[in-house]
Amino acid sequence: MTTPLLRVHNFAISLDGYGTGEGQSADAHFGHAGDRLHRWMFTTRWWQAGGSGGVDDAFVQRHDPGIGAEIMGAGKWGHPGWHEDPEWKGAWGPNPPFHTPVFVLTHHPRPSIEMEGGTTFHFLDASPADALEAAREAAGGRDVRLGGGPTVIREFLAAGLVDHMHVAVVPILLGRGVRLWDGLEGLEEDYRVEATSAPSGVTHVTFTRKG
Amino acid sequence: MTTPLLRVHNFAISLDGYGTGEGQSADAHFGHAGDRLHRWMFTTRWWQAGGSGGVDDAFVQRHDPGIGAEIMGAGKWGHPGWHEDPEWKGAWGPNPPFHTPVFVLTHHPRPSIEMEGGTTFHFLDASPADALEAAREAAGGRDVRLGGGPTVIREFLAAGLVDHMHVAVVPILLGRGVRLWDGLEGLEEDYRVEATSAPSGVTHVTFTRKG
Repeated sequence: MTTPLLRVHNFAISLDGYGTGEGQSADAHFGHAGDRLHRWMFTTRWWQAGGSGGVDDAFVQRHDPGIGAEIMGAGKWGHPGWHEDPEWKGAWGPNPPFHTPVFVLTHHPRPSIEMEGGTTFHFLDASPADALEAAREAAGGRDVRLGGGPTVIREFLAAGLVDHMHVAVVPILLGRGVRLWDGLEGLEEDYRVEATSAPSGVTHVTFTRKG
Repeated sequence: MTTPLLRVHNFAISLDGYGTGEGQSADAHFGHAGDRLHRWMFTTRWWQAGGSGGVDDAFVQRHDPGIGAEIMGAGKWGHPGWHEDPEWKGAWGPNPPFHTPVFVLTHHPRPSIEMEGGTTFHFLDASPADALEAAREAAGGRDVRLGGGPTVIREFLAAGLVDHMHVAVVPILLGRGVRLWDGLEGLEEDYRVEATSAPSGVTHVTFTRKG
């Protein structure tokens, strides 16, 4: 039996390293980036019938299989100030695309929220290691996905907890927002790193922890 | 007759965007980066007989043909403090690999230095546009290469002067040094951007100015 992994999938950044833009709000989940970090997904078979089944699709399809829980940051779950809105239930409508327990890391925990389709949001004010332990327990032997945003991924990388990471580098320069790579000097020493450029212009960079 | 271009070739950055490391000195031209940004060149046919003739070599070989002059920053020509050393003649020995006039942008101009092999160093305290005009005049109808470092390339990009740029993204995280991409939001709007990942792990990103 293999140990369950902590995996990052489809985490998109600009060429200058921003995982989200500036000015996040209820209407602009990625701030001034809009949908520009994620357009490469919209042309895949995973997103729409008749889409491409090429390398972008091969990567994007890895998002769900084998995953038993997700961990995400408060900045992914809601725009700044969501904790003052008791009705906020995340940015994905009544049936979020997770279909597993989701652990939201926040300094403003609230009671768990059960959504349609198998997604339950739990709220934790915990260290990366403690959050991972809780998510592993809920995942029932399957892997845990680390969903972002950039600050949370950076913290889990710095704590040495990430086993596999797929980053999609989009050929745009956002200029401002939240950067993924800050403070991670030498990260490549612990991983096999591969880069695969796609006809869409996106370069898929994978970090696989050395055995 | 086509207008001569301003071209950047083989400018290597880390995945986190640093074009040079921290702590540059006479013994460490790229600071703590050492030779890690440039190892991908050492295995090409261009560097050594019997090297690879693949995509890394195809890009690296574009460095010289058609070039009549180079512009470089003071930080490429010498480590911090070179201007206090009247004997400093650059980091490349008596026969530098340029073989054309080279214009060094500096606030500490000195008389021109003629080296072996056709390289002459000229020193200019000038704006990017004025430096380009001087280099174009010296290039005799051929293209001008913008040699770096990151600060100078950023300034010429911001001034809209660069026609073609080849950046080699190396899969390491330097964590500190001088970043290439700062303050260039939206640069991709003026260029066709392509990415090509190589078996070496390097991703070649090219910016070609829209016609």
